[in-house]
Amino acid sequence: MKILIIGAAGMIGMRLARSIIKDDFNGEINDITLFDVIPPKIENHKNSYKIKTGDISDPNIISELINQKPDIIYHLAAIVSGDAEENFEKGWDINAKGTWHLLEGIRKKFLTSNGSYKPKFIYASSLAVFSGPYPSAINDDFSPNPESSYGAQKLVGEILINEYSRKGFLDGVALRLPTIVVRPGKPNKAASSFYSSIIREPLNGIEAILPVPENLCHWFASPLSAIRFLRHAAKLDFKKLGNRRSLNLPGVSCSISDQILALEEIAGTKTSKLIKKIPDKKIEDIVNNWPQNFMADRAIELGFVADKDFKDIIQIYINEEINT
Amino acid sequence: MKILIIGAAGMIGMRLARSIIKDDFNGEINDITLFDVIPPKIENHKNSYKIKTGDISDPNIISELINQKPDIIYHLAAIVSGDAEENFEKGWDINAKGTWHLLEGIRKKFLTSNGSYKPKFIYASSLAVFSGPYPSAINDDFSPNPESSYGAQKLVGEILINEYSRKGFLDGVALRLPTIVVRPGKPNKAASSFYSSIIREPLNGIEAILPVPENLCHWFASPLSAIRFLRHAAKLDFKKLGNRRSLNLPGVSCSISDQILALEEIAGTKTSKLIKKIPDKKIEDIVNNWPQNFMADRAIELGFVADKDFKDIIQIYINEEINT
Repeated sequence: MKILIIGAAGMIGMRLARSIIKDDFNGEINDITLFDVIPPKIENHKNSYKIKTGDISDPNIISELINQKPDIIYHLAAIVSGDAEENFEKGWDINAKGTWHLLEGIRKKFLTSNGSYKPKFIYASSLAVFSGPYPSAINDDFSPNPESSYGAQKLVGEILINEYSRKGFLDGVALRLPTIVVRPGKPNKAASSFYSSIIREPLNGIEAILPVPENLCHWFASPLSAIRFLRHAAKLDFKKLGNRRSLNLPGVSCSISDQILALEEIAGTKTSKLIKKIPDKKIEDIVNNWPQNFMADRAIELGFVADKDFKDIIQIYINEEINT
Repeated sequence: MKILIIGAAGMIGMRLARSIIKDDFNGEINDITLFDVIPPKIENHKNSYKIKTGDISDPNIISELINQKPDIIYHLAAIVSGDAEENFEKGWDINAKGTWHLLEGIRKKFLTSNGSYKPKFIYASSLAVFSGPYPSAINDDFSPNPESSYGAQKLVGEILINEYSRKGFLDGVALRLPTIVVRPGKPNKAASSFYSSIIREPLNGIEAILPVPENLCHWFASPLSAIRFLRHAAKLDFKKLGNRRSLNLPGVSCSISDQILALEEIAGTKTSKLIKKIPDKKIEDIVNNWPQNFMADRAIELGFVADKDFKDIIQIYINEEINT
């Protein structure tokens, strides 16, 4: 079985590749191509995967990737929310048109192979497809209404995946991932970046800025859960999705004060005191409009499992990034 | 004030043009361009409008249209549902990419004019963005989930209009029109075509085929209401739409047996007996998944008014097409 990971140099893409190579390589899965704008580097497994670099808004690149006939395609590549909001054309080119080119590449291969090529297509979508006002918990029927370029681009991708699946060109699923914390490394341009910083920086003895009020709730999953979601999706019985290929995934609903409390319980007040409150109206306005809580019934029924609680999420970061 | 009607050779486009020319020309509105793939013909008003023909999937055509800086743009052009379902590429090229090119043309003009050009953009969307299972009446928060290419294409258009409006490049609204009956002329490739045929043909002494069960309910408006909706949209205070630019419009919910009864009351059983029941599973499967009833609260609050009942809808056809 051949796997293609698009966006493989990203935090999630690299972990996903590592996870598949570690568990399954030379078993059921015997071919992995890692694709991104920069070459992904996965330590200790240099002979186990192929690398390809390029821009998914280029149809020639897409053809080359699809000509390899991957059985499972993970599409994780995206311009992050802050960047997409600032750079309108870039966001639409990569996040929406890039996804469309990819689906078109698959459709053309489907047609030229007389329907014998029909891959699974697993797409990282986002909570950004939603906007408020919200109910106390968002159910599976809540209507998306993006209020960001990133959210609108992801939603267009979802509609296309639904459509290409309905027409039988591929078997797609769009996973609306919770906000992934704690991300390792540096802050990025995503408006959600502070959600990782306020845990990661203090655990590493560095001050972090909290730009929003502590009573704000949001919906989280650990990187470990994200990888489990993505791998579980590959094993789904896609027929069970019917014509609704977008899934709200389970997560942990948690306020910032609860996050700080969890950090305190794990690492003490000396650590949590490194969080400095410096309000940023621009970030608050964005985050204020984010979902706080979900009832992800469909995904749970399909076997997707959330982290236990926010302490669990912090502990996963410590295990994966500090105690290694 | 300059008006551009894209899709002006269609049934609704021509009536809209006629209505504007008759009421307003040389008043507030002093320039109308009618655009379509074929030249629209409007009797008795030959000197009152400009005609342009072309394909909206051609960016050069779009530039020419937008360079005229129309203040109000009606975008009614579309490949109908049956055609879009059969011809995947054609549907996506015209219905989705065509709309996108148009919005891009406006955005570019907005940018080169330093924001002084910002038209109203009124888009004919469709109930086809929805699929079942439905509640007894669909409210304004019901989530779209297209199960046809046409519906998916219209929904992508809606998302783009929302986004381009949110970013301030134009002031857009997407009107989810009820199914328009009674359409004059010949049946077309829309799956909804029989809804007009079963009234129109009998009133003209011709047999009509009813391909679906009589208990099926659906959501209707007359062509006259459609024109009123489109003209009312041009006078809207767009600020009241906020970031939710798609509107479910009010209509008449009616079963086929009630439609037949209304026809009988107006034209007698001799007429209604011209309806022949010849089940067509393919059409039934499509229509079965269509919405039956709405609570169009937002649109009603914004001043959109439905037809009184289905007899009213039939009477409008008789007045406009038979008694003239």
